[in-house]
Amino acid sequence: MFRKFVIMLVLSLLVAAGISQASSASRVCIIGAGYSGLATARYLQDYGLNYTIFEATPNIGGTWRYDPRVGTDEDGIPIYSSNYKNLRVNSPVDLMTYHGYEFQEGTRSFISGNCFYKYMKSFVRHFGLMENIQVRSLVTWVQRTEDKWNLTYMKTDTRKNYTEECDFVVVASGEFSTPKIPHIKGQEEYKGKTMHSHDYKEAESFRGQRVLVIGAGPSGLDVVMQLSNITSKLVHSQHILKSWHIFNQPDFPGNFISKPNVKHFTANGAVFEDDTVEEFDMVIYCTGFYYNHPFLSTLSSGITATENYVMPLYQQVVNINQPTMTFVGICKPFFAKLLDQQAHYSAKLAAGHFKLPSQDKMLRHWLEHVQMLREAQFKITDVNSVGPNVDEYFKALHKEAGVPLLPPVYASVFVFSGKTLLEDLQNYREYDYRIISDTQFKKKYNPREEVCPYDD
Amino acid sequence: MFRKFVIMLVLSLLVAAGISQASSASRVCIIGAGYSGLATARYLQDYGLNYTIFEATPNIGGTWRYDPRVGTDEDGIPIYSSNYKNLRVNSPVDLMTYHGYEFQEGTRSFISGNCFYKYMKSFVRHFGLMENIQVRSLVTWVQRTEDKWNLTYMKTDTRKNYTEECDFVVVASGEFSTPKIPHIKGQEEYKGKTMHSHDYKEAESFRGQRVLVIGAGPSGLDVVMQLSNITSKLVHSQHILKSWHIFNQPDFPGNFISKPNVKHFTANGAVFEDDTVEEFDMVIYCTGFYYNHPFLSTLSSGITATENYVMPLYQQVVNINQPTMTFVGICKPFFAKLLDQQAHYSAKLAAGHFKLPSQDKMLRHWLEHVQMLREAQFKITDVNSVGPNVDEYFKALHKEAGVPLLPPVYASVFVFSGKTLLEDLQNYREYDYRIISDTQFKKKYNPREEVCPYDD
Ligand SMILES: Cc1cc2nc3c(=O)[nH]c(=O)nc-3n(C[C@H](O)[C@H](O)[C@H](O)COP(=O)(O)OP(=O)(O)OC[C@H]3O[C@@H](n4cnc5c(N)ncnc54)[C@H](O)[C@@H]3O)c2cc1C
Ligand SMILES: Cc1cc2nc3c(=O)[nH]c(=O)nc-3n(C[C@H](O)[C@H](O)[C@H](O)COP(=O)(O)OP(=O)(O)OC[C@H]3O[C@@H](n4cnc5c(N)ncnc54)[C@H](O)[C@@H]3O)c2cc1C
Repeated sequence: MFRKFVIMLVLSLLVAAGISQASSASRVCIIGAGYSGLATARYLQDYGLNYTIFEATPNIGGTWRYDPRVGTDEDGIPIYSSNYKNLRVNSPVDLMTYHGYEFQEGTRSFISGNCFYKYMKSFVRHFGLMENIQVRSLVTWVQRTEDKWNLTYMKTDTRKNYTEECDFVVVASGEFSTPKIPHIKGQEEYKGKTMHSHDYKEAESFRGQRVLVIGAGPSGLDVVMQLSNITSKLVHSQHILKSWHIFNQPDFPGNFISKPNVKHFTANGAVFEDDTVEEFDMVIYCTGFYYNHPFLSTLSSGITATENYVMPLYQQVVNINQPTMTFVGICKPFFAKLLDQQAHYSAKLAAGHFKLPSQDKMLRHWLEHVQMLREAQFKITDVNSVGPNVDEYFKALHKEAGVPLLPPVYASVFVFSGKTLLEDLQNYREYDYRIISDTQFKKKYNPREEVCPYDD
Repeated sequence: MFRKFVIMLVLSLLVAAGISQASSASRVCIIGAGYSGLATARYLQDYGLNYTIFEATPNIGGTWRYDPRVGTDEDGIPIYSSNYKNLRVNSPVDLMTYHGYEFQEGTRSFISGNCFYKYMKSFVRHFGLMENIQVRSLVTWVQRTEDKWNLTYMKTDTRKNYTEECDFVVVASGEFSTPKIPHIKGQEEYKGKTMHSHDYKEAESFRGQRVLVIGAGPSGLDVVMQLSNITSKLVHSQHILKSWHIFNQPDFPGNFISKPNVKHFTANGAVFEDDTVEEFDMVIYCTGFYYNHPFLSTLSSGITATENYVMPLYQQVVNINQPTMTFVGICKPFFAKLLDQQAHYSAKLAAGHFKLPSQDKMLRHWLEHVQMLREAQFKITDVNSVGPNVDEYFKALHKEAGVPLLPPVYASVFVFSGKTLLEDLQNYREYDYRIISDTQFKKKYNPREEVCPYDD
């Protein structure tokens, strides 16, 4: 009798905790109308599910919509995109397209960010997604209830708050918008100007200045390239590319100085780890971004979300503690097609096309993944990465959920193009990559004017 | 203005999520009056904190209180302890005492479980803990509210439910009570009897029977030793001690058969992995225990608790998502003094004697720990273990919280006594271990009758 009571209690708690798995969700709420949110919407639509995208800004596109403003937009919302003028994609566009909606042959591989944005708008029109996108809706809180989710958002024009019910929530709010500035000794003593790459828009405003750029990720490299003929002095401090000067080095004028990490700042400059000193007027931190999910807490959603970690996520997608919530686009590094795969996996889960393992088994899978990352030499802050073997990841999503298998050539191009970019940093975007079979691709130097096949 | 709003929002969410750290808790609730709960109570009392222990059964002692009954107790509650008659401790008692409350010199090292239970009762009397222990109070739900915890319990005699407020919760509900029975092929075909070591009380009732014992953990070894001269046939199936017969093998009568894992059961017996077959009337699963925290869910407490994992825990103690909750005794393998250290750390946190790192830093620490365990060849289900280097763990608790440093000799005795147990399995409890300095101990063969220095 008492045992029965305990079993009933446990069962009812499990149900209350939402551990039981839904079949097909009757309403899906997507947070964010960037690449990932739109990808998810398209698959949900394919599967006949009812969904709404809540987008904070007045526009779709996320990262890919360049905004010339710094600070806040017309509604007083912080400018979202970290894009800059003249940005061109840093991975071949074939690795970035939505499944089955490809660029026409002959388009160059490294198109402009602006062209990719136009492509996304075309995708939205083609699949008729716009009518389910609710813009100027900043999601402020997501709360699990007995058997649903309550999603609260603020209309940014009226500042009014609304709460809506969802059966399934897809978090696709991006991860490249909250600037991460490392703590460096003496920062408070430094009297010059400081900014983060998030606010970098174009090179011209730095003409004649003495600039320190910190970081050699994609943004750091781009900013250095763009400033190299503009500033009166350009100091690049970084620790990633210990030997990038040994390749076909960009033809910088004499004012370019490569440095290791900053040891400490001074009033007018900095001392570097090699004990050399440089003076400058401006620091641009190209030091990456923090995760930012102020609309989630463990108690509201079961997810642990801090500036460096979002966990525990099964397949880097599913909230293990509340599997009617998924995350699309939380891993790094990646190429956009990987997000399209996660979107598809997510939609298939919402549609009830497959059944997840138990919570305990998903945790085991996740823990094993975390341990594997260490063996593969990943940093601890890369715990949300899919790991070194992207192909294995695609195979896993395919096997478990029936997501169409992305042929191995994509991962090959990604790895190859990433590695060889340094062989010709200044011109790497003038090459074309063409995928010719599931396993083969061709690379060719082919500089030319961009002809973007999509218009506004 | 809007940025300010966002900052306020984030701050208020952080506070709502209880991330802000309390100074000294005005009321601490402890779940369980076993070794760990009592240890915690003693330190809380030392620090002048107000606390209550909620204990499900009518008694203190947890594991250490032998209960001859199988099934449920007088209140209809499942029998808690997994102890058996004639149990003797499997680690020297010096590794099990509460700090500063030691057994008198000359007591033998491997005392009876019954004597250890008397010792615990003496400890409770000595420190006057009893008045703060509320027995027959089964905690059924723990819920984080804005700034407190609501703890709900059922009085097992009246079946009435009560909810009380706590500032700080210590979970010390034990981890050796919910039987784990692995799935083995053909289990449903087998027509004989089946039980788990949790319900094993004494050898006599198996006289003349043909018994299969599965498992070679502490309970498995004890059960085999106890049954060896009682049963008509004794089959021991296990995979841990691949070569334990090469040591000073216990002098079993001819009816003892050592086997690898069961491949599959049959109606009257089993086929083993070496393809041999044995028949028997009874299976005793000595296959360990599951975690069981039906009173917690992620949404109620921030803790992910399944049968195999409790996470994420900073220092294997602190609920990283709600650091006003700690767990004492959730790690394995261990010796009881380690739980006393965790209890002290826990009490110091409740008393505000030290400040935890940020949530993000605690997560990083925990993730690094998880990764380290893999390098140290731990199983994935040992993710709550403190790891191979117990001394480093003690040093960490000492350095961070000021918990008195347990000298390295304790870990040495633990490792040594564990390893050498197999050299004389039948007599290993007839040796004495004496700690003679912070780094040295002596081992001596010294069989004699037990004189327990504590009485009821
Ligand atoms: C400078 C730069 C260059 C890049 N170059 C490449 C490249 O060449 N190739 C490549 O594959 N990837 C590149 N990336 C990565 C790129 O971000 C991804 O390819 C992809 O755009 C990510 O899409 P997303 O939808 O996940 O996020 P985002 O594009 O960031 O979109 C997130 C959306 O969510 C909205 N949102 C956020 N919070 C809320 C909220 N609380 N409520 C409502 N809405 C919200 C945002 O307004 C935004 O519209 C680059 C990134 C940056 C920053
Ligand atoms: C057979 C066996 C032999 C062992 N031998 C040794 C040994 O030789 N040396 C050694 O160091 N360790 C040994 N151990 C480990 C032993 O369990 C620990 O040393 C120690 O007793 C654990 O104490 P604890 O307080 O954490 O848990 P427990 O002793 O299990 O106590 C937990 C208490 O919490 C109560 N409780 C549980 N749930 C609730 C609830 N929901 N509400 C209220 N109360 C609740 C229980 O009733 C119980 O009283 C052995 C364990 C077993 C099973």
